[in-house]
Amino acid sequence: MTRISLADVPAVTARLAQELATTAIARDRVGGHAAAERERIAASGLLSLSIPQAQGGVQADWATIYRTIRQLAEVDSALAHVYAFHHLQMASVLLYGRAEQHQRLFRETIDKRLFWGNALNPLDTGLTAAPVEGGWLLDGVKSYASGSVGSDRLCLSAHVKDAEGGAPQLLIGVLATRAEGVTVREDWDAFGQRQTDSGTVRFDNVLLPQRDVLLSAGAVQSTRATLRPQLAQLILTNLYLGIARGAFEAARRFTLENTKPWFTSGLPRTSDDPVVQHRYGQLRLVVRPAELAVDFAVAELQHALDAGDAVTAQQRGELAVAVAEAKALSHRAAIEVSNQLFELTGAHSTSARYGLDRFWRNARVHTLHDPVDQKLRDIGRHAIEGTLPTPTPYS
Amino acid sequence: MTRISLADVPAVTARLAQELATTAIARDRVGGHAAAERERIAASGLLSLSIPQAQGGVQADWATIYRTIRQLAEVDSALAHVYAFHHLQMASVLLYGRAEQHQRLFRETIDKRLFWGNALNPLDTGLTAAPVEGGWLLDGVKSYASGSVGSDRLCLSAHVKDAEGGAPQLLIGVLATRAEGVTVREDWDAFGQRQTDSGTVRFDNVLLPQRDVLLSAGAVQSTRATLRPQLAQLILTNLYLGIARGAFEAARRFTLENTKPWFTSGLPRTSDDPVVQHRYGQLRLVVRPAELAVDFAVAELQHALDAGDAVTAQQRGELAVAVAEAKALSHRAAIEVSNQLFELTGAHSTSARYGLDRFWRNARVHTLHDPVDQKLRDIGRHAIEGTLPTPTPYS
Amino acid sequence: MTRISLADVPAVTARLAQELATTAIARDRVGGHAAAERERIAASGLLSLSIPQAQGGVQADWATIYRTIRQLAEVDSALAHVYAFHHLQMASVLLYGRAEQHQRLFRETIDKRLFWGNALNPLDTGLTAAPVEGGWLLDGVKSYASGSVGSDRLCLSAHVKDAEGGAPQLLIGVLATRAEGVTVREDWDAFGQRQTDSGTVRFDNVLLPQRDVLLSAGAVQSTRATLRPQLAQLILTNLYLGIARGAFEAARRFTLENTKPWFTSGLPRTSDDPVVQHRYGQLRLVVRPAELAVDFAVAELQHALDAGDAVTAQQRGELAVAVAEAKALSHRAAIEVSNQLFELTGAHSTSARYGLDRFWRNARVHTLHDPVDQKLRDIGRHAIEGTLPTPTPYS
Amino acid sequence: MTRISLADVPAVTARLAQELATTAIARDRVGGHAAAERERIAASGLLSLSIPQAQGGVQADWATIYRTIRQLAEVDSALAHVYAFHHLQMASVLLYGRAEQHQRLFRETIDKRLFWGNALNPLDTGLTAAPVEGGWLLDGVKSYASGSVGSDRLCLSAHVKDAEGGAPQLLIGVLATRAEGVTVREDWDAFGQRQTDSGTVRFDNVLLPQRDVLLSAGAVQSTRATLRPQLAQLILTNLYLGIARGAFEAARRFTLENTKPWFTSGLPRTSDDPVVQHRYGQLRLVVRPAELAVDFAVAELQHALDAGDAVTAQQRGELAVAVAEAKALSHRAAIEVSNQLFELTGAHSTSARYGLDRFWRNARVHTLHDPVDQKLRDIGRHAIEGTLPTPTPYS
Repeated sequence: MTRISLADVPAVTARLAQELATTAIARDRVGGHAAAERERIAASGLLSLSIPQAQGGVQADWATIYRTIRQLAEVDSALAHVYAFHHLQMASVLLYGRAEQHQRLFRETIDKRLFWGNALNPLDTGLTAAPVEGGWLLDGVKSYASGSVGSDRLCLSAHVKDAEGGAPQLLIGVLATRAEGVTVREDWDAFGQRQTDSGTVRFDNVLLPQRDVLLSAGAVQSTRATLRPQLAQLILTNLYLGIARGAFEAARRFTLENTKPWFTSGLPRTSDDPVVQHRYGQLRLVVRPAELAVDFAVAELQHALDAGDAVTAQQRGELAVAVAEAKALSHRAAIEVSNQLFELTGAHSTSARYGLDRFWRNARVHTLHDPVDQKLRDIGRHAIEGTLPTPTPYS
Repeated sequence: MTRISLADVPAVTARLAQELATTAIARDRVGGHAAAERERIAASGLLSLSIPQAQGGVQADWATIYRTIRQLAEVDSALAHVYAFHHLQMASVLLYGRAEQHQRLFRETIDKRLFWGNALNPLDTGLTAAPVEGGWLLDGVKSYASGSVGSDRLCLSAHVKDAEGGAPQLLIGVLATRAEGVTVREDWDAFGQRQTDSGTVRFDNVLLPQRDVLLSAGAVQSTRATLRPQLAQLILTNLYLGIARGAFEAARRFTLENTKPWFTSGLPRTSDDPVVQHRYGQLRLVVRPAELAVDFAVAELQHALDAGDAVTAQQRGELAVAVAEAKALSHRAAIEVSNQLFELTGAHSTSARYGLDRFWRNARVHTLHDPVDQKLRDIGRHAIEGTLPTPTPYS
Repeated sequence: MTRISLADVPAVTARLAQELATTAIARDRVGGHAAAERERIAASGLLSLSIPQAQGGVQADWATIYRTIRQLAEVDSALAHVYAFHHLQMASVLLYGRAEQHQRLFRETIDKRLFWGNALNPLDTGLTAAPVEGGWLLDGVKSYASGSVGSDRLCLSAHVKDAEGGAPQLLIGVLATRAEGVTVREDWDAFGQRQTDSGTVRFDNVLLPQRDVLLSAGAVQSTRATLRPQLAQLILTNLYLGIARGAFEAARRFTLENTKPWFTSGLPRTSDDPVVQHRYGQLRLVVRPAELAVDFAVAELQHALDAGDAVTAQQRGELAVAVAEAKALSHRAAIEVSNQLFELTGAHSTSARYGLDRFWRNARVHTLHDPVDQKLRDIGRHAIEGTLPTPTPYS
Repeated sequence: MTRISLADVPAVTARLAQELATTAIARDRVGGHAAAERERIAASGLLSLSIPQAQGGVQADWATIYRTIRQLAEVDSALAHVYAFHHLQMASVLLYGRAEQHQRLFRETIDKRLFWGNALNPLDTGLTAAPVEGGWLLDGVKSYASGSVGSDRLCLSAHVKDAEGGAPQLLIGVLATRAEGVTVREDWDAFGQRQTDSGTVRFDNVLLPQRDVLLSAGAVQSTRATLRPQLAQLILTNLYLGIARGAFEAARRFTLENTKPWFTSGLPRTSDDPVVQHRYGQLRLVVRPAELAVDFAVAELQHALDAGDAVTAQQRGELAVAVAEAKALSHRAAIEVSNQLFELTGAHSTSARYGLDRFWRNARVHTLHDPVDQKLRDIGRHAIEGTLPTPTPYS
């Protein structure tokens, strides 16, 4: 992996974003796996941001990592998602794993320039794990596995049948995507976020060695480990915000460069129209709250992570509220900007060659990951009487 | 042309809508010219609705015609547009033409089952007409000519250079699409309304015989003739409303048939969720005003048409306000329903196989035809001090 | 009572509205009972609109009656409420009462020019009725009895203890407000709708003769009788719409007559500002849907009333949906216009001497009569799968 | 003046807020001058927060001062305004005055516990200054002079006729409110912010000694001096935010303590209603952006002030955008929360004894200080192409 330092991050990110931008419209049209661009991401060195320095990573703080996600999402929110989910797996190894696993898995990731994908979804019970000599035998299917296509490693969750007939127990582990018995089907067909490689992963009697189990079946998750859903939700949030900002920027440019004022207006430029200025002001006031709320929530997450095992349920709960606020505001920003921008760019802007609809399609698909109405109710309950959200894989 | 009576219209429309629906998602994906479906429309007999009984048409009132447009738009707003623009040309012949032209052109349309397209846009100055023996020589280009691809006849506008150096003068005529020197390019590439056949029509020294001139160059349009833009705006309006209703219906069904309540809700069905019911109520209150305002404006238009040459500028102006209200409300309904429906149908509904994004893409592209902000200002000026909108091709 | 004919109604209403307008700001400030203005209403003859011609009334259709309510509400929504609730009592006599009661009570109302108030609220269980020789003994309290202060007659509901220990049974009757044992306390103290005379009525062993019982305890209400809540909800709806229209008119005038454009604008008049025109357009599009939906619902109510005992639960349910739509839209119109108008009239318009805040205070208080969120859910449930609202005193 | 330290501020503010709260509803009803409460403010020591330590003040940063303003505004935004405008005058002395004036005026303010009011409004040309021996003769009127009634000192602006017939020139000075020839009329009669003492100040040939002139007629204002409007706008902003937060808190409590769930809901508590939770969530998402944007803008202002004379037009312009964003968001929060809260507290909450309408009346009156639509256009222009707002007394 290209070694980069923290100081390189802005320039490296900017360059990568520029590269992705040149092909984003064309790739959105085609969909599918973007092998060359994933290679470019890997080559950039940015995959090491979330890896500890001890194992050769940059060990950037999460404000830095999220900023790179946001910046890439401004031009290509699908690949930004794939990129971000690599970091989510790194965080999963860190939060669930043991020191030995940290050393081994991070080191290997650096040395072999591994790209990680996600097959960890505790609510998806399609994959079972049965105890065998030296580990577990995995059988079944994980759906919507983001970044799985073309990945090197997967974090996965599986359910272990309870011997006493109780509810199945959750087990979390890591596996090579090319391990024997693993097949990834490229079957993601949503109308947006088309290159997220969110395939279906099939496991046919695949051995998961015990040493690659991060969380044992039935083990109680520490409060610290329950930060993972918050970290994941903030990834989505930053992707939404990136889409909102990217769409705003595209609109702004189009208004300045490609529009004429309406024939009855008598104005020299579209941007001189008071109603246009007013609308841009209103739209900016949809994006700005998201920016501020995201910065706040990211800082809160970093505090919680920095607290380590000392993090309390109260701190975790307040973080969850801050994340819910940031997510709902970013959701709204992405949807509103990508939808309303067309009132400001006009009929001509709907030509497919500008690809301006991709912002809305990406936002529309991605913001449905989990229901915003649940977030609003979480925020409401907290506002009414201080109730903290119940920790789940989504809250 | 299949002869139908007024009494047949509901059943014929319903059957046609059902047919279009079966292929709408697939055709939206491919785009381009829908020859077979246009043939089905022509075969249905509905193209004769706007033709006087004297020439063999149904001579339906506009409430009936607009209703058919709306119903087709619920399932396929692109072909509904092509269908509606045929009727717009019939109205143009009626409003601009002479009795002789009515007889000849309508009769021919019935007898040969002609499908008309639009090349009439007074603001597009790309086509010039020069006087020659027996008529005019047309030279130039008309862009965004809806329904032109595959049409039999075109209404067109051209500009005649003023001999005294004044502003070019508008001339309106009709022409066979397959006339010598006419070529239609299939270059419409918007991300929505993909099958509207809105190509570019090129005229290379094409002869327009004098007898096919509907409005002579420089002739003052009667107030009655200025009803044409209102009639056209109400076509757009009914298309928007059709999209809104179609999207609502698709959402409703998806919620009932394809969704599960959120895993923390404890509810048997999504539709039992109070927030979902509340949202559907709010969404219905976006569609309902459009329905009511459209019905009102259509009735006003019919009154104005029925008044014939006695229609006054005041009546025309008040109609324009009613149309502006209906259009802005339908615009909003189409955009809001097609955008928000996804909060009610969830992540699974973004699979390309359901094609649910087409409602938004169609609405987004079509509602930019002319700026809604101008309509809002027209409505505002009228509300403040009774100012009537200035007649233009859009208002 | 002044005899008026249907033809007189517009002029009589306009004159009455003008009179109420001259003192409305001052009376709103003081609150309390408006004896002189109630006398003016009674003297106008409009109280006879809802009384059958057979007993000397005008027997106007409800479109006419609601129009008078709306017009009065444009200038004084508190007295319009008192006026409207008189008509609600007339309708209650008609819907619940027998022919003999119709004759006697309507005739008396005409002859003695009676003004009726409301003490009929089936959900308020504060008043009990016990059987005695020749009728019932009333004991207890009715709260928020609109129009009770200064009224001549009351419609009331009371609860009768069930002999077998079941739920108390509803009884509906009429009573002279000045009957022995009845006291009305002027204790309505809301910050809006200050002159609605919505006092608390205390009954101390008051005799209700059997012949004045409209609905016997435990009698099953006919579907026709359940139209009363719809009729009442449409009164509220028309009051809201009247407030919205009155506020809009006040704003419009203020903008034209009392404002200057912002010092940086360079415009001659505030109304020349594109953003102001746009905002007025948007505001008009909040009022217009309410107007259309109210007209529709009123026509539906009239059909249902005209159907008499033949009205079905289905028709009643669809009426309830139309009323819910009209009510929610009028609610929104009243609140939005009365709130937003100030952005269009500026700082100077907040001087108490203009009394422009009374529209919001009136709308805010009155729209809370029963929760709009229940209406939205009723509309939603109907939109999703055609569920009809359950008949209650509010739906 | 009570000496307080920075560490005392939270407790002192909390205590003062609690005291004001106990009488706020009653005082709002009466309006007029709140002499006793102004005395309590003065006695608290908080008036010294904006005064340099060198002259005996606390010299708190503006984050601290604005926080006290916000907290007082949560319970009494009228007196919070009077309090805040004292600090605005202190800032004016600091920004416009010379070192000698700082020493003298601040020292005197501390020693005599002076309460300052505002008569400084460069756009109000009602007051003229004519040169006389030793200073200027003031003649005329200043309207809407906030905090003038009952104040000890005034900052004022006056216009000096230009000798060469050019535009009148601005002069800024300070004066004792009880100086000979000064009369303050208590004529503020808005329907909200009723105790802001915003009277009309009449000057009859009042001498303004030269030494009390802060800005000489015709002197060019430094960029640093143009921070005063931003500082003033952030006062308004914090007052709006205080109203929003106060209204939210009042609503929350009312929902929990004074409401019953709707009779058809079957829920134990109003706060268990999913729609209520959802609405509170949405409302919280109106307040939260304002909180974040205000904190950001206040920090930017502090940076600009700390930069002293080195502050650039660019920095000042970006600050103006941040302030405009914070102001528009706080404006919206104040209006939306104070308006919508009633949907969450119900009919009973409109009783005058709860005084819940005062939040809306205060917000509605105060947010009209200068038009939010101008702020939106400033934000829009900056968003489109980086244009900085032109410095005016409001931007």
